[in-house]
This record gives sequence, structure tokens and C-alpha cells, in this order.
Amino acid sequence: MDTTRTEIASLGEFGLIEHLTKNNETHQAGTLLSVGDDAAVIDQFGRQCVISNDLLLEGIHFDLMYTPLKHLGYKAVVVNLSDIYAMMATPTHITLALGISNKFSVEALEEFYEGVYAACDKFNVDLIGGDTSSSKAGFVISVTAIGEVAPDKYVTRSGAKVNDLICVSGDLGAAYLGLQLLEREKRIFLENPQIQPDLENQKYLIGRILKPEPRADIVEWLQEANITPTSMIDVSDGLSSELLHICTASDVGCILYEEKIPVHDDARKVAMEFQIGAAACALSGGEDYELLFTVKQEDYEKVARNNNISVIGYITEKSEGANLLTTGGNKHKLTSAGWNAFS
Amino acid sequence: MDTTRTEIASLGEFGLIEHLTKNNETHQAGTLLSVGDDAAVIDQFGRQCVISNDLLLEGIHFDLMYTPLKHLGYKAVVVNLSDIYAMMATPTHITLALGISNKFSVEALEEFYEGVYAACDKFNVDLIGGDTSSSKAGFVISVTAIGEVAPDKYVTRSGAKVNDLICVSGDLGAAYLGLQLLEREKRIFLENPQIQPDLENQKYLIGRILKPEPRADIVEWLQEANITPTSMIDVSDGLSSELLHICTASDVGCILYEEKIPVHDDARKVAMEFQIGAAACALSGGEDYELLFTVKQEDYEKVARNNNISVIGYITEKSEGANLLTTGGNKHKLTSAGWNAFS
Repeated sequence: MDTTRTEIASLGEFGLIEHLTKNNETHQAGTLLSVGDDAAVIDQFGRQCVISNDLLLEGIHFDLMYTPLKHLGYKAVVVNLSDIYAMMATPTHITLALGISNKFSVEALEEFYEGVYAACDKFNVDLIGGDTSSSKAGFVISVTAIGEVAPDKYVTRSGAKVNDLICVSGDLGAAYLGLQLLEREKRIFLENPQIQPDLENQKYLIGRILKPEPRADIVEWLQEANITPTSMIDVSDGLSSELLHICTASDVGCILYEEKIPVHDDARKVAMEFQIGAAACALSGGEDYELLFTVKQEDYEKVARNNNISVIGYITEKSEGANLLTTGGNKHKLTSAGWNAFS
Repeated sequence: MDTTRTEIASLGEFGLIEHLTKNNETHQAGTLLSVGDDAAVIDQFGRQCVISNDLLLEGIHFDLMYTPLKHLGYKAVVVNLSDIYAMMATPTHITLALGISNKFSVEALEEFYEGVYAACDKFNVDLIGGDTSSSKAGFVISVTAIGEVAPDKYVTRSGAKVNDLICVSGDLGAAYLGLQLLEREKRIFLENPQIQPDLENQKYLIGRILKPEPRADIVEWLQEANITPTSMIDVSDGLSSELLHICTASDVGCILYEEKIPVHDDARKVAMEFQIGAAACALSGGEDYELLFTVKQEDYEKVARNNNISVIGYITEKSEGANLLTTGGNKHKLTSAGWNAFS
């Protein structure tokens, strides 16, 4: 028995993965991209296959008290598809393994599968493997997504170069604020079950957390516009954390303009209500499932014409560090205040 | 809200999967084999890729009280590789997603990964994706295995034909008896923690449950001997249940000879000690990870020469049903007394 005990929290999620996989050896010549990106890439006889695998656990990633099962089924699929799109690849297949507690009925699972199939239909993906098992520990969802990409056309986190523009799709922070609304309504309900939740006016924010949409449209548009991002990642944890992933993997620094970060009006209003900065929600909130990517300067005009894409900063030398320029004109070191599952 | 409530136990594991996936539609022309076999097969630009995804949950699939983490890491990988071999395919890659409770230390996870890497090294497989998350609900392990197979050379559960011979590799029932020994020692230990477990003489049985080996060697031998099984499945639940899967998928019946079922001497002795039939352990025990397959009559002589393969029966018309001929000369209907996770 080893007598040392190192707490997982001392490494954090990303430190932990790095620690455990640093001695990972490659046996297969077809392994093109391994642990450390949104998805892995393997060469299948000259064509390339992109694979991603995520777990969603009850009590960690979702709360069944306010998550309709159909939405959960949809979300479990699309968050995995988002990883495939973040490689500039096209998802084609998923497998789904479930751990199911006894409290579930067949009808409840039917609802969950309705959501799974809705996502499969929308994104033209086949469910090809189903495994179910009982669980003593809440609902456990494991989805593996498989996609395809033309040879060497996948985009990793590691290709950002000095002076590249930092772009992000859609808007950020809304999913986090939607979650805060749901958590508030839950507390109110638990204190007084007679009070019905009033979320009618917050459809946008609630929709962002319960039913995220992966940005297949952005990948398609980039391909049509003949723009190859130099790096790409999906925003699952928060803008800060994702941008730092790109900077670390690409060995560069960055300047991020707070005022350029796209925030939806509804998000801005609710952020004010909760007395938190809207930019903080974007930087550290997570679950937006937008695409964060870098492009060469020469692609600026093309990108600027797309209303669904914001240019929010640029890549610098590593020695300059990763910095946020606030609306007030101050310069702050960007920190990964994103989700640390073990803290 | 739906007002009907159907208990999952009323469908059973296999009934549940069938119920939930019966309306599963195919969008991708490349989907060759979907839900319902050991693994799925997709066509990747003319070459074929085999995919399987399994969950292992603490308290359901393993008990950390008597499962060393290194063994668990090894087993989590090989039970998935076993699904790939059961398609007569060769595993090449795995992804691993973990849900980790706070009680785990980094050192504990290092032990687990040692087992994962040992399996990867032994079977020449690359770990290409790592996802970790915290878990409120014990240790959650999800492995996806990916393999390759020459075009249309994969073997499903559905090709068994009347008069084909039923074959099984290795021996059966030992894993179940190993588990009974561990459970007994656990009870004794919990009643009196001073008593140390005495399992020195039971290395074979304990090894079968804690460190199963997938039958890569059998797949290789079949390929070298130029034998193409007409159907194949791995024995994860129990011989009865697996043979019934083949009969149902192939639309045939079978005769299984009790006296031909291979049982290890150690298993026979311990079965006697526990006062259970050794054949019952083989039929209903599970977790042996041997390969059950059918071959044409003309392959009999080749198969008979391999000491690691037993011919245990033959395939009949469906109308004759699936039957067990006991050593005493009685004929019993084969029932899927295998594992039902929801009962």
C-alpha cells in the first residue's frame, strides 16, 4: 500500500488528467491525436475518425428536480456532438450507456430517449449502441460520439499563432444565468411548495441551460467560407478556461477585450438582478456550448460579416501572458476560474 | 405528465433495451450493425470500424472492498475488448471517462490507471480520450472500445444455422464462484475484522473474477485456422443467457449437453463446498468473458483439435426450442436465468 495521499483537488480536473496520462504510450500507428483535445482522431485506413466520450452524472451535471428527461436526453447527445464539431468534424454516430436507478419507470426512460432521438434526427446521427445497467447512485449517462473529417482537416487546440484573431460564436454566460434562475426557483419551491416557479419571461436563459444547441451551423459556414480556424475548442466550462486551454496548447498568450464578449440582453438583465457581472458569467460560467476559435488576420473581413461570430481579442507572444482588458481600461491576468469539479 | 408507470423490472435488461430502441432510425448509410449485438459496426469509407461502450458502476459491477484498483482498471478495459473480439474484430483504441468520488486520492487513481495501461500494453490498444468528473455516487467507469475488421468479416449473433456446432472457449462458472468466495470472506471480515481472508488456494477462481482475460488468442486461432464462426458472443452474463441471445437473433433452437460444459477442477470443488451445481454456475453465473460461437459441421475436426475449445451442443430448428440435456439424461428448457440487473 502506498502511504502518501494526494488530494485530487490539489491537481484540479485538468491537472489530474495530465498527471494520469503523461506516460500514456501509443501502440497504434493510426493514433493521430490522443488525450488532451475536445476529441481524439484516429486514422482508419487513410480516412479519419473523430471520437469523444463524456459522462453526465446526476447531482453533478444535472438536477432531475428541474431537468425534464426529454431535455436531458437531448443535451446528453448534443454536448458530445459539440466536441466533434469543435474539431471541425461532422458527427455520424453515438453510443449510449445508461446507469438507471430503480426509481425510474419505463415511461421516464421513454421520455429520455425521445430527447436522444430528437438530437439524432436533428444532427443526422445514428444511435448504434445501447447499454443499460442498474445504478445504486442516481442516473448515469455515458455518450460516445463518433465523427468523420477529411484527412488532416481536423482543428485542434494547439495551432493558434501570434496575431491570430480570437473569435467566438453566439453569446456567452446565458446558460450559467439560466442555471442560477433554476436553482433559485428550486430553493423557493423547497421552502414553500405552494409557490409555482415563474420562469415564463426567462425562456432564453432557461433554454440555454436545459437545451443547448451545438454550433453545427458555424462549422458549416466556416467550411463554406473556406476559413480554416488555426485552433478551436467548444465552450463547455467558461470562456477563460477554454481560452487558456488554447493558449497553453498553442504555447501563446492573448489579449481578450471584455467589451467585445457577446452577452445576450436577457443575460445582462438577470446578471444585474443577481448582482454579478455579465462578463464574469461569460468568463467563468460554462455550458454555453459555443465555439471558440482563432483565425488568421486575413480572414477578418469574412468573419466580421457573420453576425453569429464575434471577434473578441487576438493572440500574442507567450511571454506577454494571457490578459483581459476590462471595459474600464484595466489589464488583468486571465485565470481559469472555470469549473473545478473537485474543489 | 404520463400517469402510467411501468416498472423497469417488468421488462428486464434486454427487454428494456429492445423497447427503447425499437423505433431507432438509421440516418447514415455507413451504419452496418446497430444496437443489439456485442458491438456496433460502421463503414468508414469502405473499411469497417467496430465500437462498443460499457459502464462499470461501484456497488453494481464491482465492490471496492475486495477489488484492487489496478485489477479494476485492467478489467474495465478488457471487458470492453472482449466485446470487440466477440465480433471477430481487433481492438485498436479505447476512451475512458471516469466519475470519481472525493474519497479517492491521486495515488488510488494512479493504481487504477496502471491497470488500464497494463491492459492497453497487453492488447496493443491506445487510450485516446480521458474525461474525469467528480461523482457523488461512487466510482463510475465508462469505457468505449474501438476496433477494426476487414470488410464484412465481422461475426454477429444472428448467423447460426441448423446443425451448426456450438463451441465455447476455456471454462465456465469459475468467475461466479470466485465472486462467491470474495463475498463470503467479506461477510466473515465484517463480522470479525481480526480474521484475515484465506484465499491463497483459490488463486484461479479469484483471478477469474478480478482479472478476466479476453480471448484474443481464440480469435487469432480461428483466423489462422481459416474458420469463420457463423455466430459469436462473449460470455458476460452466463452461458444460458448468451446461447439464448444467439438462438433468438439467429431464429433457431439448440441442444446443449450439460456434460460437455467445460468446468475447471477448482470450480467443481468450490461449487460442491457451496452446494451448488457446477453446471448451474456456468449456465447462470456470468463474467467468464469466454467466447461462445457456432461453426459449420465441416469445421468439427479443426475445432476438436484445439484444447481451448469445447463443442457443447448443436443448433436445431427453432420449433424444437432451446434445450439442455442434463447429465442424468433429462431434457430441460433453457431459461435465461442470467443476470437481471433490475430484479
